[in-house]
Order: sequence, then C-alpha cells, then structure tokens
Amino acid sequence: MNRLFSALPTTVFETMSCLAREHDAINLGQGFPDDPGPEAVRRAAADAVVDGWNQYPPMMGLDAAREALAAFYAAEQGIALDWRAEVMVTSGATEALAAAMFSLIEPGDEVILFPPMYDAYLPLVKRAGGVPVFVPLEPPSWRFDADVLRKAFTPKTRVVLLNNPVNPSGTLIPREDLELLGALTADAGAIVVSDEVWEGTVYDDAPFTSVLHIDALRHSAVKIGSAGKLFSLTGWKVGWVCAAPALTAQLARAHQFLTFTTPPNLQAAVAFGLGEGRGSIAETRAMLQGRRDRFAGGLERLGFRVNPCAGTYFLTIDTRGEDDVAFCERLVRQGGVAAIPVSHFYAGHDPQRGTARLCFAKSPATLDAALDRLAAFV
Amino acid sequence: MNRLFSALPTTVFETMSCLAREHDAINLGQGFPDDPGPEAVRRAAADAVVDGWNQYPPMMGLDAAREALAAFYAAEQGIALDWRAEVMVTSGATEALAAAMFSLIEPGDEVILFPPMYDAYLPLVKRAGGVPVFVPLEPPSWRFDADVLRKAFTPKTRVVLLNNPVNPSGTLIPREDLELLGALTADAGAIVVSDEVWEGTVYDDAPFTSVLHIDALRHSAVKIGSAGKLFSLTGWKVGWVCAAPALTAQLARAHQFLTFTTPPNLQAAVAFGLGEGRGSIAETRAMLQGRRDRFAGGLERLGFRVNPCAGTYFLTIDTRGEDDVAFCERLVRQGGVAAIPVSHFYAGHDPQRGTARLCFAKSPATLDAALDRLAAFV
Ligand SMILES: CSCCC(=O)C(=O)O
Ligand SMILES: CSCCC(=O)C(=O)O
Repeated sequence: MNRLFSALPTTVFETMSCLAREHDAINLGQGFPDDPGPEAVRRAAADAVVDGWNQYPPMMGLDAAREALAAFYAAEQGIALDWRAEVMVTSGATEALAAAMFSLIEPGDEVILFPPMYDAYLPLVKRAGGVPVFVPLEPPSWRFDADVLRKAFTPKTRVVLLNNPVNPSGTLIPREDLELLGALTADAGAIVVSDEVWEGTVYDDAPFTSVLHIDALRHSAVKIGSAGKLFSLTGWKVGWVCAAPALTAQLARAHQFLTFTTPPNLQAAVAFGLGEGRGSIAETRAMLQGRRDRFAGGLERLGFRVNPCAGTYFLTIDTRGEDDVAFCERLVRQGGVAAIPVSHFYAGHDPQRGTARLCFAKSPATLDAALDRLAAFV
Repeated sequence: MNRLFSALPTTVFETMSCLAREHDAINLGQGFPDDPGPEAVRRAAADAVVDGWNQYPPMMGLDAAREALAAFYAAEQGIALDWRAEVMVTSGATEALAAAMFSLIEPGDEVILFPPMYDAYLPLVKRAGGVPVFVPLEPPSWRFDADVLRKAFTPKTRVVLLNNPVNPSGTLIPREDLELLGALTADAGAIVVSDEVWEGTVYDDAPFTSVLHIDALRHSAVKIGSAGKLFSLTGWKVGWVCAAPALTAQLARAHQFLTFTTPPNLQAAVAFGLGEGRGSIAETRAMLQGRRDRFAGGLERLGFRVNPCAGTYFLTIDTRGEDDVAFCERLVRQGGVAAIPVSHFYAGHDPQRGTARLCFAKSPATLDAALDRLAAFV
C-alpha cells in the first residue's frame, strides 16, 4: 500500500457532506449550488446522448469543445489560444490538476504552494514526488508577502501552484502580485499552474487577471478551468487546460493514462454552453452576487465578522475566538449548519485557526433558513 | 517536466485513429463499436441529465449504481459484494487503474506484468514508483509458464497487474492459472489488480473466472470493470472497482484526488442498464460473436492465420513473416485498413513481432469492406 495515501483521510468536503446528512444539517460545506443548472445546456447534453456519438472522442477533447473554449476566452478574457495545440479537455479540473502534477514534477522538484489551498493540491504534489514549499496567506487580505515569496524560490523550484480566484478566501490575486510571481517564475525557469475554476464567479465587475494575461507567463503557465463551476453543474466533471503547445502536449501524456478522455455528450453540451448558451454564465454570476450580499448581510447582523468576497461560492467568517474545527463541529451537530473549517486548507501550516467557510450558492430560502439556525446557535 | 512522461509517445490507439482519418482507412485499430449503443440506456442518461441531479454525487458513486453493480455481479458471476464497502464508481476503467497503481504502490515495490498488455499499464506502474517485472506471453496459447511466474515473485513483489479477458490476445486466463497466481500472491502478501473490462464479451459460453472467484484472492484482489465496454458506450468513461473494504478504501484515497467523482446522469443510466436494461448485454455479446465469426472466416479465406478468440473486440492474425509494425504501417497507408501491431503491447519485451490486432466490433458492412480491402492488399 502506498503510505502517503494510507495516511490520508477522506476529503473534508465529503466528510462534512456526510455529517450534514447525518445531522440533517443545511449543507453550506461542500461547494455546490442547489439549483438544477441551465436547462438549455442540460438539454444539449440529453440530445447529444440520444442522437450523438457515444464512443471514444479524441483524447484531447471534442474539436467543438476546444474551439468553443478558445472563442470563449478570446471574447471574455482577451486571451488568444490556438485550440488545436493549446486546449485540452479533461475529466474535471481535478483530473487536470493531477495531469499537471504528474507530468510536470520530477521527483525532488520543489513546488511552491499558497495555503489556504484546495485539499487535493498537497497530496497530488507529494504523490508526484514534489517537495512542497509553503507561502501561507492570512486574512483579511490573504495576499502574499513579496519577500516571503522571493525566499520561497530556490534553484530547485520547478512548479508554482496557484488558485485564482482563491478558494476558500474568496479573494482575487491582484495583477501586480501575478506580475511579481511571473518575474520570479521566469527567472527560476519554473512553470505556474493556475487553477482558475472560479473565474466565472467574479463579482462587482472586479478585474480578473488570468495567469495567461501575464507576458512573462504566457508560455510557461497552465490555466485550468471547469465547466462544472462555470455552468453550476458541478457533477459533470468536464474541465480543461489551456497552455502553450509544449506544455499542453506534456499534460496530455499524463491525461491519456489518467482518464484518456471525457464523455462526448457532456463535452458537446459544454461547447453549446460556451457559445449560444453563454448568457447563462452572466445570469448565474448576477444571481450569485445577490446571494452573497443577502447572506453576508445576514451574517453581519448576527454579529459575525465577514471577510470581503470578490469571487467563488464562499464567504469566510471569524469564529469568535473559538478554534475553527471545534466551531464547525459544534455548528453541524448542534446548530444544524455544515461549514468548513479554514484550517483544513492549511495542511498543518495554519498561521491562524479562527475562520470558517460557508457556501452561499444556495436558494434564498436555504440561506435564510441557515441564518435562522445560526441565530439560534450563537 | 517529468522525464518519464516527456519520453512517452501518444498512445498507439490515438495515433492509429489519426492515421486512419488521414488515409481514409477503415479503423479496426482503436477498440470501439461503430453502433450507437443501447437506446434505453442512452435515454436513461438523457432523462437523468434533464430531470435529475447534476451536482456532485457522492465520491464513491451513486448509491443506485453501486447497488446495481453488486446485484449484477451476484446474478451474473455469483460474486457477493457489500456495495457500501466493496464497490466504487470511477471515471472509466483507466482512472480505476490509475487509482489502484497510485494508491497501492510504494516507490520501489515490484509489480508483475504480463505483456502483451494495454499500453497504460507500464507508464502508470512506473509513474507510481513501481519496478516492473515482466512475464511475457506468446501466441498461440498466450498462457504463462508456471516456473517463469514463480521466479518473477520476489520478497519485493507487492502488486500483480492482470487483464482478463486479455487485450490484445482475445484469450481468457484459465481458472487453474488464476489458482496458481492466487497461491503465489497470497504467499507473497501481494495484491492482484485484475482489469476485467472485457468480461461482458466472452463468447461461446466459455467459463469466465474473475479474480474474486479465487478464494486465496477474495480479500487481496481488485476487480476493475467498465460500463463503456459492457454497454458498447466507450465514450462514457464510467468504470468501477470491486474489492474488499480495506482495498476499496485505499483506492478511494487516490480516486478522490484524481477525478473525485463521475457524472451522475451517466451513473444513473448505468444503474438502469445493469438492472432493467441488462438484456442488452447478452444481445451485444451474441451480436459480437457473430461478427467475430464472420470476420475470422473472411480473414482465413484470405490466407491469414487467425488466433483463437474467446473474448474482447479483437482478433489477432499473423503478419506473414513481416514485422508487425511495418505490416500495420503499410496496411493503413496502402491498404486502407487500420490495425494495431501487437509488439506495441510488449513495451519493448517482445518475444515475437509477427502479430497484428484487428477490432471486429463493427457493422457487417464495415467488416466486409475491410475484407475487400485486405484482399486487394495481400
Ligand atoms: C470536490 S468537492 C469540493 C468542492 C469545492 O470546490 C469546495 O467545496 O471547495
Ligand atoms: C483508450 S483507446 C483504447 C481502446 C482499447 O481498449 C483498445 O483499443 O485496446
């Protein structure tokens, strides 16, 4: 048995969702919306599975999906991609991350990570043979310190793994920070892998900077995206990578042996959603922004300190002096609301333990019910 | 960049499918049927994506799919499984294999492999840190030699990776061979991973023995299956593992970070297919058996020596004294038929280079057209 995996617990999201079911709690832990997702996109998937091709699609993804992705990013983010060489569809962003780590890391390579971070990052880096180097971030700004970052780079740095917008903090990485990171990465001859699955959930017209916007990184960065997040269909597990041709080809070497390819009907529906169905993305964003505001207002009225949230499905609150794990345990068992302790995202490198994460991508009725339970709890 | 993956070519199946498109060849290379797959199963997927849950299903798979798998194996193979602890759904059998290799192998562990073998096996074993030990098989029996197998086991043997029915040879591993393997594996305290994706394509009522039928292996083996193969829907990428609780839990540790979960609408349709829709499996098998016979007869009339085929989508033929790679190159370019050279499945450990693999899971018209082209070619 592999010792790294034997020692791992089940992901906190799964554990919390199980606890929520057990205690009949409102589940604001695992990040998923409680609405059905855009009907036209779901109908496109249904049509494709009945009338379309159900055998292996090309390993790199359906042409239609890859073309639609390139057109989408050109229109929405001003990023020009050659879809034949720079776009690959994966079975969710998690598979894209795994393919990136296994194909880019040579055992012994150093990988810079920014806790708090999604809980798949560290096990994947380690299982790929990477040596993690941590640059922890703290509320309320969650920005890295330039000197700490500079010192994290060594001659062995090969990969920098980012998340932007950031889960769990709900922040965006400012362009100047990405420029600095780009310069340091270019100096080191390293590669940035940027998990941008939350790019569709940026609120208040805040400027989002992709790693591919940074000149120094255009040919040495991998952008990872997710249809599940973009279309509020988290179960679909359709993701992608966008990167310079040599990097995309390198990731494909791993992808072909991790899943090989991704269901063609869902890919066809994603192609439709990125093209004709694109309106749903802006509608969802506006709806989510309203829910964020409704829920943040309610939490503040209950006396919680709520950190600013520029993107993602998540608000973070301070746990009023209580350890976040203890707070979330009590909250799910006694309060009937599931949340995620942010210390879980630090993988043991917690500079602080007083923040909980709550998912606001839920119906107003659910959010109001959660607020009622929280009012009774505090 | 990871050196193992930098040095890897694109999978031969993808390469051959591209060559086939380029030369307008009939594609009997990559193994997929050219019919649309069972309509009722596809309709179930369409219904589920329109009316059902499109957010994250449980990491282990939908309860309905796991229950249906346990019921299916109880009825079809007499294997009793506790679905809550012994069944996990994966994003195709490839992901199941990857999860098995990454979760079971500790760097330095020896892994026994039986070339000819599916081309994902060796890269996954190596990337997981395993040290491959080869027991090559040869036509026409493709059985292992007991003494060679015995010598392959060392104190470092931790995993044995099998395929049964065997791709590309089209053979079944006889029960007595599995019993011997079970005894040796038990002595070594190792684990058998058995890729049984072709279990639905066993012809002539031949007896199929799963690794879970062998008493010595019931608690130390992982059985991998595939809905894509079982239902002729190779693009769906729904697979599974069946294993004792501790093994299933160990594989889940890797699965949660490789893909996390699998599209719920396809899982729901697979649950339907394994239950109410089960009839399509026997129908497909009977149809495939007829096509095998039609194609084998045609090949023999053209003077090819055709090896016996008990299962899978594949026939293997001798290449009349020509190197198999050269034969397949000429065949796709000049003959207009794509096939796979069996030496590709030996990863450099070829004891012979005179066998080509042809996929017969195609319409009679396609098979007849391929036979006409082959007649002109020879
Ligand atoms: C794979 S479950 C996690 C979903 C998510 O992105 C989150 O809750 O952070
Ligand atoms: C992933 S493509 C390979 C399909 C197949 O099983 C084969 O052709 O052997």
